Amino acid sequence: MPTREYTVAVLGASGAVGQQILRNLEERSFPVKELKPLASKRSAGKTVRFRGEDVVIQEATPEAFEGVDIALFSAGGGVSEKFAPEAVKRGAVVVDNTNAFRMDPEVPLVVPEVNAEAIRNHKGIIANPNCSTIQMVVALKPLYDRFGFDRVIVSTYQAVSGSGASAVEELRKQSEAALKGEEVPKEIMPVGKLDKHYQIAFNALPQCDVAQENGFTLEEMKMVRETKKIFNDDNIGVTATCVRVPVMRGHSETVYVELKEDFDLEEVRQVLSEGKGIILQDDIDNQVYPTPLDAEGRDEVFVGRVRRDVINPRALNMWVVSDNLLKGAATNAVQIAEHLVSLDS
Amino acid sequence: MPTREYTVAVLGASGAVGQQILRNLEERSFPVKELKPLASKRSAGKTVRFRGEDVVIQEATPEAFEGVDIALFSAGGGVSEKFAPEAVKRGAVVVDNTNAFRMDPEVPLVVPEVNAEAIRNHKGIIANPNCSTIQMVVALKPLYDRFGFDRVIVSTYQAVSGSGASAVEELRKQSEAALKGEEVPKEIMPVGKLDKHYQIAFNALPQCDVAQENGFTLEEMKMVRETKKIFNDDNIGVTATCVRVPVMRGHSETVYVELKEDFDLEEVRQVLSEGKGIILQDDIDNQVYPTPLDAEGRDEVFVGRVRRDVINPRALNMWVVSDNLLKGAATNAVQIAEHLVSLDS
Repeated sequence: MPTREYTVAVLGASGAVGQQILRNLEERSFPVKELKPLASKRSAGKTVRFRGEDVVIQEATPEAFEGVDIALFSAGGGVSEKFAPEAVKRGAVVVDNTNAFRMDPEVPLVVPEVNAEAIRNHKGIIANPNCSTIQMVVALKPLYDRFGFDRVIVSTYQAVSGSGASAVEELRKQSEAALKGEEVPKEIMPVGKLDKHYQIAFNALPQCDVAQENGFTLEEMKMVRETKKIFNDDNIGVTATCVRVPVMRGHSETVYVELKEDFDLEEVRQVLSEGKGIILQDDIDNQVYPTPLDAEGRDEVFVGRVRRDVINPRALNMWVVSDNLLKGAATNAVQIAEHLVSLDS
Repeated sequence: MPTREYTVAVLGASGAVGQQILRNLEERSFPVKELKPLASKRSAGKTVRFRGEDVVIQEATPEAFEGVDIALFSAGGGVSEKFAPEAVKRGAVVVDNTNAFRMDPEVPLVVPEVNAEAIRNHKGIIANPNCSTIQMVVALKPLYDRFGFDRVIVSTYQAVSGSGASAVEELRKQSEAALKGEEVPKEIMPVGKLDKHYQIAFNALPQCDVAQENGFTLEEMKMVRETKKIFNDDNIGVTATCVRVPVMRGHSETVYVELKEDFDLEEVRQVLSEGKGIILQDDIDNQVYPTPLDAEGRDEVFVGRVRRDVINPRALNMWVVSDNLLKGAATNAVQIAEHLVSLDS
């Protein structure tokens, strides 16, 4: 048992990920001395539920971080850029769930199953990777250690909850309207801040973030860049196509990976099944494979459809599923905080 | 104008694809002298609408093919195996939309935009490829002609209508129940004839057909084998992962393709935009790309998200969408029949 307890701030406490962080802190018995739920002025004064009590949300201000030991940020990149330095100045360690600092060379980008040791090098901020990256690197880690790999080609099937609770509500409303043959409201998907909005209900949208100069989207380039940084290996090549599908919660990915060595498929399954944070569900003959609906509410990464490629005998194909709000966000952030705490003891 | 008119049988006339075939024959002004809608005993006596008239469905029997010139089959592989030889014996040319004869070396497998010339070699049966294969090869054809390619890695986002009208109804019912928080009926997806059924509403299922010995599914191996046969090129390597998504109609695919030559991306776009049967919708900066909902009811194959790969500069990534009941089935079959007719004149 840790002897020390911590004052923990959760910035974005009323959001989809913030809510899951609170639940994770509670379920994983994180040593919280005091919880400080923080949010924008608009949400301040509302309450969140924590350990059976209602805790009042305070407005996020620089001063709100006085006395905070660990601050879990999940309120958007702009908010992180504004408040992370303020929290650090006041002695907090920030675990940031946004894109603001991920590629900053001074900031460790951490998935504990892959590179927990990077946490030691933090200078006040530790970044939580993008949801799509996290589940992929967890699945790739045991393969990297045993066989090495050069190249990954990934296509995603991403849930709307990656765009927040309002996007989940939009999918519900659109689905209801479409089923009744009524006009479908389109206000958020695929990217809230962009001009054009498409129906996501009963549709698939090949855009999960803004466009980049090379024709890829930011979501796709996050997977490329973050994977190299997490493995600390610039030789890893990743090609990604990120697609939004009408799923509430849980991202799925088809992952093609070229290993560096010849492999025995049974050994690959063994290595995956023993991989940290992985649950192997792989028996297509008996229709056993993960689905986003089954992964909902679970902290692990689920891997199935493991098979040797038909063209390149050194390549593998897999289907990787995880709850984007948990391992893809809240769980990973709380796991980072747990590692931070373990460094104290 | 063709001087000849034809007696056309449509086997499976009451099914999802059969209905589209009737619509296509009518809309494309196919020279039908007499329409013979055929189906199982169960549907015989019902009527279908054709050119403003109700036409009675007859029971499919060997004798029903007497006097038929062209027979479009879309009633399942077993039915095709039983009746195609009977129809051919009676002088009909069969365009078969099932998997029964696709890999038969005596049977041409045809996507008119790619290999219309193969129709000339038929011995009574011409096979229509699998829906997922058709849209991919239409998109690949202009690239093949201009640059050549070795290798394709494809992930699919397939609509439930690929499993028939009852699967569409299942998605509707499941969606309604899920939105109300009621128990979700599971009877068909992912593969009607298999034991285990998963919820497809608000979910993604990495299985579109039965498992094969190599861990791939039949749907995936169809894409591998049919692509080689259609291009008449055994050097083409295809890796496929086929996934069912909660979309009513319209298949989408992420396609990674390694070209044989260096290329200029603008030339690739030009070549694609001039490709037969292709509509290029490719401007991510302005959020222009195809979606299955927009492709519904259209005969073409839509291509977007065209971009040079970040790792392999000779590789391209694309997003390919088409209506699986039209170009993926009915339209392609009727186009084959049109080519047959043109050989007569």
